[in-house]
Amino acid sequence: MHVLIIGADGMLGRKLAAALAAPASPLGAIDRLKLVDIASPPAPAGLSAVTASEAVDLSTKGATEMLIATRPDVIFHLAAVVSGEAEVDFDKGYRVNLDGTRALFEAIRHEGLERPYRPRVVFASSAAVFGAPFPERLDDDCATAPLTSYGTQKAICELLLADYSRRRILDGIGLRLPTICIRPGTPNRAASGFFSNILREPLAGQEAVLPVADDVRHWFASPRAAVGFFLHAATLDLETVGHRRSLIMPGLSATVGDEIEALRRLSGEAAVRLIRREPDPLIERIVSGWAERFDAGRALALGFTAEATFDEILRVHVEDELGGRA
Amino acid sequence: MHVLIIGADGMLGRKLAAALAAPASPLGAIDRLKLVDIASPPAPAGLSAVTASEAVDLSTKGATEMLIATRPDVIFHLAAVVSGEAEVDFDKGYRVNLDGTRALFEAIRHEGLERPYRPRVVFASSAAVFGAPFPERLDDDCATAPLTSYGTQKAICELLLADYSRRRILDGIGLRLPTICIRPGTPNRAASGFFSNILREPLAGQEAVLPVADDVRHWFASPRAAVGFFLHAATLDLETVGHRRSLIMPGLSATVGDEIEALRRLSGEAAVRLIRREPDPLIERIVSGWAERFDAGRALALGFTAEATFDEILRVHVEDELGGRA
Repeated sequence: MHVLIIGADGMLGRKLAAALAAPASPLGAIDRLKLVDIASPPAPAGLSAVTASEAVDLSTKGATEMLIATRPDVIFHLAAVVSGEAEVDFDKGYRVNLDGTRALFEAIRHEGLERPYRPRVVFASSAAVFGAPFPERLDDDCATAPLTSYGTQKAICELLLADYSRRRILDGIGLRLPTICIRPGTPNRAASGFFSNILREPLAGQEAVLPVADDVRHWFASPRAAVGFFLHAATLDLETVGHRRSLIMPGLSATVGDEIEALRRLSGEAAVRLIRREPDPLIERIVSGWAERFDAGRALALGFTAEATFDEILRVHVEDELGGRA
Repeated sequence: MHVLIIGADGMLGRKLAAALAAPASPLGAIDRLKLVDIASPPAPAGLSAVTASEAVDLSTKGATEMLIATRPDVIFHLAAVVSGEAEVDFDKGYRVNLDGTRALFEAIRHEGLERPYRPRVVFASSAAVFGAPFPERLDDDCATAPLTSYGTQKAICELLLADYSRRRILDGIGLRLPTICIRPGTPNRAASGFFSNILREPLAGQEAVLPVADDVRHWFASPRAAVGFFLHAATLDLETVGHRRSLIMPGLSATVGDEIEALRRLSGEAAVRLIRREPDPLIERIVSGWAERFDAGRALALGFTAEATFDEILRVHVEDELGGRA
């Protein structure tokens, strides 16, 4: 099997690459694993000779054709300008998130016109395709009414993914990801970054800024759960999924207060005191347009799973990022 | 007021131009009315000196910038490759229906970066943004899950319209049009054309082909009602509409059998006998992915109106197209 990860230098991309490069890859025997991002992605631990890494800007003419010329069987597409940046930089958000994705799908179509080709495409979408006001039950039958340009770009790519799948140009599945928490590493420009910062930084003895109120409720899954979504999506039989190819992934509905209580249980009051409250109107506005909970029934029925408590999410972080020591 | 109609050579575009060129235009004093289409649109009856006509291909580089340079206050965008053609010609459908519309919105954005500019944009969308399976109640809160490339292109443009409106680049409204019936003139390549053909042709003493079964149910409004939608949308206060800028327009849910019965009541058995049944699998498949009825509650509350019976729809055709003589 030949696998391509686009956006392999991002947090999820790196974890996914590591899972695939491991000796017992969940996808079975991998002949070739190609890692692509705007900067050349680092080689994962356990690198084998079949792994290659390359710096590619999807929005450059000819870039996607070059990636597809080697006809990967499974393409994970995680490359994106994050929500905060896409809101500030209109041109960059549309160029990368919409045009880059469309160029990828078009390259697949043109490759298939030469000789039959229909790869599995696993597309990282987002719960941000939905926007307020929300119905009582928010599931995959609800309107995508995003309140950010990022959410708009993801919703458009979902429509393209569905149309290209319906025409059997590719075999696509879109993962409407919850907010990933706890993101390791350093803060990025995603408007949702603080949900991770207020746990990760205090666990490392550092201060963190909380820009919204404690009663803000949101939808979460761990990085480990998210990597599990991608691996499951790569091998799932999609014929039974029908034409609606984007699915709300399972997650945990919890408040900022729930996060803080879980932190208190794990690390005590001293850790909690490192959270500094600094309301930010732009972040508050963006977050208020996101849903608090979802009905992920379709994905659950297909075998996707995630955490049920914030204590579990903290435990995953301690195990995967802190060598087991909180 | 300066008004631009893109797609002014289409059936609805011509009727809209005629309504605006009339001495008592529903939009008030029009200083300038520009009519644009892929071929130079005909001058409407009652042409005044303020009306200009031009042939423009929206997908040509620089075309939309040129149209927007004169800063129209109201832009009616009706130009599109129809559903049947967009399904057969993938490239043309995406180039015209998606890229052409996006180029228009981008031209407006760039004009506004020079000097404040925020026109009303009335976009002709379609009920084809929805696709089977349908919920019990199909309204504007339901997922756009189109089963044609045409529906996909319209749904994507709706998302762009909403994002550009949210960012106050333009003040947009999308009209999710029912199938327009009875279309005057000659059959076009729309997959829905037969719904009109089986009434218009027998009324003119001609044979017509019916490619689907009599119990096929669909959603209709007359050309007169559709022109009314556009005129109403041009002047409606959209601040109360919120961020969901595309609305299901009112219509009539009726079967092919209902159409035939209304024809029988108006013109008798001889007219009905001119309908020739010739099942067409492609048309049957496309039509089976369309909804049978909608909840147009939002549009009705905003003052949009349409016909309630097929007898009314036939009467409108007789009055507007046949000089009052059936």
